[in-house]
Amino acid sequence: MDEFDFIRELLAPLAGEGAFGLTDDAAMLRPDENGLVVTADMLVEGRHFTPHCPPDSVAKKSLRVNLSDLAAKGARPVCYLLSIAWRTGQDLDWKRAFVRGLKEDQDRYGVYLLGGDTTVTDGPLTVSITAFGAPGPRGMIRRAGAQPGDCVFVTGEIGGAGLALRVLADEPMPAGVDRAALVAAYREPEPPVPFASVVAAHAHVAIDVSDGVLADAAHIAEVSGVQVEIDLERLPLAPATRTWLEGQQDRDAALAALASAGDDYQILFAAPEEAAETLVEEASALGVRLTRIGRIVAGKGLKIIVDSREIRPDRLGFTHF
Amino acid sequence: MDEFDFIRELLAPLAGEGAFGLTDDAAMLRPDENGLVVTADMLVEGRHFTPHCPPDSVAKKSLRVNLSDLAAKGARPVCYLLSIAWRTGQDLDWKRAFVRGLKEDQDRYGVYLLGGDTTVTDGPLTVSITAFGAPGPRGMIRRAGAQPGDCVFVTGEIGGAGLALRVLADEPMPAGVDRAALVAAYREPEPPVPFASVVAAHAHVAIDVSDGVLADAAHIAEVSGVQVEIDLERLPLAPATRTWLEGQQDRDAALAALASAGDDYQILFAAPEEAAETLVEEASALGVRLTRIGRIVAGKGLKIIVDSREIRPDRLGFTHF
Repeated sequence: MDEFDFIRELLAPLAGEGAFGLTDDAAMLRPDENGLVVTADMLVEGRHFTPHCPPDSVAKKSLRVNLSDLAAKGARPVCYLLSIAWRTGQDLDWKRAFVRGLKEDQDRYGVYLLGGDTTVTDGPLTVSITAFGAPGPRGMIRRAGAQPGDCVFVTGEIGGAGLALRVLADEPMPAGVDRAALVAAYREPEPPVPFASVVAAHAHVAIDVSDGVLADAAHIAEVSGVQVEIDLERLPLAPATRTWLEGQQDRDAALAALASAGDDYQILFAAPEEAAETLVEEASALGVRLTRIGRIVAGKGLKIIVDSREIRPDRLGFTHF
Repeated sequence: MDEFDFIRELLAPLAGEGAFGLTDDAAMLRPDENGLVVTADMLVEGRHFTPHCPPDSVAKKSLRVNLSDLAAKGARPVCYLLSIAWRTGQDLDWKRAFVRGLKEDQDRYGVYLLGGDTTVTDGPLTVSITAFGAPGPRGMIRRAGAQPGDCVFVTGEIGGAGLALRVLADEPMPAGVDRAALVAAYREPEPPVPFASVVAAHAHVAIDVSDGVLADAAHIAEVSGVQVEIDLERLPLAPATRTWLEGQQDRDAALAALASAGDDYQILFAAPEEAAETLVEEASALGVRLTRIGRIVAGKGLKIIVDSREIRPDRLGFTHF
């Protein structure tokens, strides 16, 4: 099966409006007057996923990290471009399973393939996705605009994906830690895509947690020109993560590690105090766990609290450089 | 200089409308009612450019192969997303020169950076660009729609980039071949970006020549459901390419090789006979070489002519699989 057969037989069935059935080198985007939010993420084997990660999980993670960015901007996902450099000699079964993963997530999230490119690399498998989403009525929710007095919230659970990397590196884990649950959080993150409408309606600022809660909170502080105060005792943890935490001697360092591990793909956002009650209700209606973990104050940078004490960890998050 | 400093200091000055100065994970696209043409190309070191290619040339080629796709669709380029996986430890001077190459081409082609992603790979440098363009009044010019009786044209010169690969592989060249001119055509292709308006006005179908004239003509034949007849004696050749051709014993095979080498980044298109005169005038006004190399007839597939004889080469073009 050559490149053109692969596109025609496996990828073309994933294509939607504007893609011309992938028969062309280009596609058409026809947004309405609100425009489109666009985001791009590139994933490299051995860095964003392990070489032994199942192909359908690689596909899902590649797509979801982009859907996560859209959700954090308050945008409903619409379609995406896929550019992929297969490893030399990557077998067809692997590629078929990758495409199956895309298809499952297309059905789950209501998105379609618009176009892209396929090539080959002598290095690690590399996936580059550009995703497009429809913003809410207030436009794209940015990192700028947090106001003193705002409450800081985070969706879902934090730190599990970071612990998964320790599991995959065969680091010893405290007794009772559910290793499989941690690895699943890393391999197939579950960004709260339907929560985009809530972000669109209420958030002053929002960011998806990819570099770690602390690093991403610091991005908001910097771009908004405010101080973000985060109470690490409030960090929402999955059961496996809580079990791990209970086995750690230096609790401050352990909490800071969870909040700087990255790969969570949840939404960190700030909204006015008066929206708090509505936010909790709307999150609950969507089945999304929502936790208030801090507040915006005048000032700059981050203030990190544990048990009403300020702590100053060495490292705030992950940088891909 | 970390990832965030690099973005702030070197990439942010390249950003334009909707990019929010690269302070966010996402950007806004606000096309008018005609929508936007979008295209994506991924380039891998050692495959689409050599490891010794100067960094500014890598940047320019990566951008231009995308601008080539837009031009072939009759679209004026507007902006682009850059996702790049640097090689581990790639030095800052190299990255600075890469950014300088982008800047020079932004000024040359009137485009700006909208966003993207930066990461690192243990493998070859990998550049993934998504480019956006404004279509002409008839919308995106596609591969479908060629009609029997149409004339087939190609812009610029063909085959030089393919010969450059032979030069770079130290293959012997006939005396008098300008090796540097061939290598330049490969490293910094010059897609006829301003010619997009002519394509938009007159072409029934168009494609950029990236896989080779014959392979790309075959794509048009397939998608349009017609036969494309190409007369290889009419292939427009640069002086260095002509010198090479004169040194070849099997002229049929040599012409077929030039027409299937790929990497030309010119526009192959079909337009009605009655537009021919206007096309020649408009191309001349833009300083674009335009050559009639064939015609569309009823039937299917390719018909390849040399000296009024049909030939059947073994290989039509390049496939990246």
